[in-house]
Parts: sequence; structure tokens; C-alpha cells
Amino acid sequence: MDESKALYFAGVDFGGTAAKIGVVDERGTLLRRSRLEIDPAQSYEEIFSAVSAQIQQMSEAEAVPLAAIGIGAPGFIDRREGRVLQGSENLPAFKERSLVTYLASAHDIPVFADNDGNCAAAGELKFGVGQEYSHFVMITLGAGVGGAIVIDGRVHRGSRGLAGELGHICLDPNGPWCSCGSRGCLEQYASAPAIVACYAQKRAKRSEAFRRDPQLLKLTPKEVFQRAGSGDVAAEEVIQETARRIAQAFGTLVNLMDIQACIIGGGVSAAGEELVEPVRRYLPDFAWPLPLSGVQVHAAGLQNDAGILGAAAQAWERLEG
Amino acid sequence: MDESKALYFAGVDFGGTAAKIGVVDERGTLLRRSRLEIDPAQSYEEIFSAVSAQIQQMSEAEAVPLAAIGIGAPGFIDRREGRVLQGSENLPAFKERSLVTYLASAHDIPVFADNDGNCAAAGELKFGVGQEYSHFVMITLGAGVGGAIVIDGRVHRGSRGLAGELGHICLDPNGPWCSCGSRGCLEQYASAPAIVACYAQKRAKRSEAFRRDPQLLKLTPKEVFQRAGSGDVAAEEVIQETARRIAQAFGTLVNLMDIQACIIGGGVSAAGEELVEPVRRYLPDFAWPLPLSGVQVHAAGLQNDAGILGAAAQAWERLEG
Repeated sequence: MDESKALYFAGVDFGGTAAKIGVVDERGTLLRRSRLEIDPAQSYEEIFSAVSAQIQQMSEAEAVPLAAIGIGAPGFIDRREGRVLQGSENLPAFKERSLVTYLASAHDIPVFADNDGNCAAAGELKFGVGQEYSHFVMITLGAGVGGAIVIDGRVHRGSRGLAGELGHICLDPNGPWCSCGSRGCLEQYASAPAIVACYAQKRAKRSEAFRRDPQLLKLTPKEVFQRAGSGDVAAEEVIQETARRIAQAFGTLVNLMDIQACIIGGGVSAAGEELVEPVRRYLPDFAWPLPLSGVQVHAAGLQNDAGILGAAAQAWERLEG
Repeated sequence: MDESKALYFAGVDFGGTAAKIGVVDERGTLLRRSRLEIDPAQSYEEIFSAVSAQIQQMSEAEAVPLAAIGIGAPGFIDRREGRVLQGSENLPAFKERSLVTYLASAHDIPVFADNDGNCAAAGELKFGVGQEYSHFVMITLGAGVGGAIVIDGRVHRGSRGLAGELGHICLDPNGPWCSCGSRGCLEQYASAPAIVACYAQKRAKRSEAFRRDPQLLKLTPKEVFQRAGSGDVAAEEVIQETARRIAQAFGTLVNLMDIQACIIGGGVSAAGEELVEPVRRYLPDFAWPLPLSGVQVHAAGLQNDAGILGAAAQAWERLEG
């Protein structure tokens, strides 16, 4: 590879109903982006031929050669073959298929697929607040809770590529049942639906009718944060409780991993300091002072296009070997 | 280094009141061992001149040249300088001193010091059941609970060498207060004193006098396991509860690290399958099925001389670079 040449990457971020696609340079500038709606009835070939066409168009329009393509998707993804092992319920065409073979063959460049939590951490490492650290953990708070652990400047993937399921560490063995079959997982306290449901429940307990208002369940976490800011005591309590659970998870990771930073990403992290400040405040309850010393707590640096940038970043990281 | 020559290491395992010292070959055979009582009033120089003399004697008696000296001690130990950062309350002379400088100067060979939990994992990796795995976690159950994480065939030390505090991950934020200042740490459920205290408490609740028998607090965990084997229901319950908490900690690590095995060491692990079997049985309650698939749960392979062998093993591991 000619060292003097700038590198460009395509990033593909698969969500439940759409793929976000973009072309990214080495500084994390998103040169071009698009969104492709996906129908769950579409076949593997239909989805990837459309994705491939978009990548081709963008790369030609920018007149940049791509060094690699990175793909991020939910679920457990086999690191070597890019095969979706589990968790592709929203995209049945991907079940047990490799996410890399079609594009690798169509574009004749390296293609790497990884879990979206790993991509988020790779994105922070290459382009976000993680650039300052070589050891950190990241959680992503959205419809579910994911995450990843970065060790010595690389995303830790474990023996088979399944590492980093931070959303499913058990914070309370008597806590609420989780979709994964365990109880008291972080996801049950800190996902967007959990935050909203907790708020609706608290309001119901404080209403004269003792009834849960179905309208409240349609709120976004952002609106719960806004209500807290406007003096809604129930909303403020929800944020404190959520922050305390996140701090418990981070405390476990501080004690286990001797990290330099804890990063909160995903849609919920748009709340910024409203969420980060109480996490930082509760963290000493759950970590040894010595490994905690110097540990920084941040909201993610990448927000709206974190998925595309993260997918591209993990491809870059893995291209480096 | 001449590749054809066999390597020999000295291992020094500092406990609260004694140092165990030995000379070990590459297969983990303990050629010679000794025990040196330590008085908390002794100075750093007094302790290490005695240790140094023992190492010298053993190496001469066996007529083997030592490749390195390994030291294991409780507490947080700075990886690079071997300095005791915290946790040397039983050996005040070590406070904030480097454990390697005296011996390195006296013997003119590499000396490496590490936390006893890290040494235990290094010992299993080089000489014990960990030889079969490149990714595993280990907990050591004794007066306290320690542990370590092995990644890609090396003990994970984190950004400053403080990683692996498995005894202090919070399993229940409303659990019993721990000496570390947190609540519900694994150590509060699975250390030797915790197991015995839990048994004494259960028996008190089941006695006519509703009184805790002080004699019961003098039992060893081994005796609690023996009572369980003889049909003592309270003892059996204690073992089930302890095993379930250990499984919770292991489940967290399975989800986080994508490991191949969980190893239980320390004095309590002498119970063998009596403890390991229920841990194995409870583990699926706390881990995703996919990362859990294929994960083995073992008692440690090294027992009585695990401390010396582990100290020697970590020196060997680090000599390799």
C-alpha cells in the first residue's frame, strides 16, 4: 500500500429497517451518505446488490478509491467469516449468512463485518473521544444496550468474536427478567424503552388514578431528560436510577479491566452531561479508588453518523492487522 | 539465551505472615521449597536479605542457574516497577516499595513482581488446567477473593497493571457492605470467612436458642463442605448460594470477554466438584447461550504450591516479552 496516499473507507450500518451507507476519510469526515430502506422480505442478494450499487455510486461521485468496506450489524457476528451467528431477527435474510462475501466479491477489496457495539467503540477510537485512550469501555444506549471493550488500542473481540455484551451483565440477580433469559441485565435499566417505561411507571404511582398513561410510553428518552430539566421529580429520579445502574456496570469494568475512560454512546447519550454527570458521581460507589483514579467518563464524540463512521473505523482498524 | 538450555525460575509467594520460596523448572516441577516466617516488624532489607539467601541456597543446592525470579504478593502492584501501590497492610515494610529492586541487584537476573491473583492465573496458564486455553478467567477463593483474566495466552494487566479485581465486582447493589467500600462484592459471598459466617448464621436461625455458636465460626470451608456431604441442609444451602454468586460473576465475564474457561482456585477450591458442579449448573442463568457454548468450568490444577508456581510462572511469562 502506498503510504503517501490518503485512505478512504465505505461504512455500512445495518439497522432493523434500513442501511445507512457512507464514504469516510481518515479523519472521520463523512464525504457522502445515503440511506437505504430494507424490507424484511428482501433476500440477501437483493439487499446486498442495492448496498453495492450505492457504494459504487458514492465512490465514483467522490472519485476516491476505497481501501476497504466496513459493515456493522446487530447480533453476534463471527469475526473471521463475518457470519451472523445470532440476533438478526429483524433481518431474517442475514440469518447464518456471511455479511462480507457479496461485497468482497463485487468490489474486490477487503470487507470486514462486526457487531454494532464493536463498531461504535472502533468509531470512538479512530474518530471520537476514544482517540485519547488505549484502554476504555463503551456502552451504547438505544433500543437495546450494547458495548465493547478496547484494550491496547484495539477492540477486544475474545476467543470467537463474541466479546463485549455489556448490555447483558447481571446487575441484580433478583432484577427484572430480560429478553436474554437472565435477570437484572443492564439493558433492563438503561435502554431507551426501559427509561421511558420506568418514567411512565413512576408517574402512574404518583397519579390520582394510579394508572399508567399510555401516552407517556410514547415519549423519547430525550423528552424524559427535558422533563427532568423542567423540574419533573419522577423524571429526575429515573435519570438518577439509570445513571446509578450505568455506574454499577462501569464500576465492574473499572475493577476488571484497569481502563482509562468510560464512554456512553447510542441515542440516549445525546442527553450529554445530564446523564454523564450523575454516572460520574455514582461511579465511586462501585469501583476501587486506585483503579478508578484518573478514569474519565464521557458522552460519545460521534452522534448522528456514529453507525457509518464506526463501521468504517472497524474496517480500518482491521486493515491495519 | 541458549534455546537448548532448560530454564529454571525462583518463585516467591508473600502471604500475610510468611514467604513461600521455591525453585521450579519449565514443566512446573518444584525442585525445592522452603518457608520463611515474616514478622510484621521486620524491615524491607531484613525480609529481602533472608529471601535472597534462601534463593541462593536452593539454586546452589540444585546446581541450576536461574533465568528469573518471580514474586507474588497481595494488593495492587505497579507492573513496571513492581511497586506496592496498595493492599500491603499485613506487610507494612512493603508499603510503596518496589518488590523487585533488592533481588534484582543481589542476583543480577530479571525479577518480576505481580499481584497474587495474576500469579495464580499465570500458574494455571503455564503449569495447570489453563494450558489448554488462550482465553480464560480465574478466581481465587481464600481469605479474600482475587482473580485475573487471561487474553490471547497472557494475563491481562490493563493500563497500569491494576486489572483483574474480580473479588470486588458488585453482584448486588443492596448486598452486604464490603471492606472496599462497595456493597455486594463477590468477596462478600465467596471468601472463606464469608462461607463460614453464612453457615454459622444459617445454623443460628435454625437453632432453638436462635444464637450463633462461636465454635461454628472456627470451621474451615472444607468442614462446611464435609457437613454438606453428610446431609447438613444448612451447609448444603450455603454451598448452593455461594456457587450461584460465583456463577453470576463468571456469567458477567463470559458475556464481556468471550472466554473458553472459568477456573476456580484458592484454598476453597480444594472442595473440587462439590463446588464446581453447582457453579456449572447455575452459569446458564447469567450468560448468553452463544458465548457460553463450549465454556468449561474447572477447579484449579495447582493446589498446595500454587503460590510459588504462579510467582515463577508470571516471571517466565514476562521474560518471554
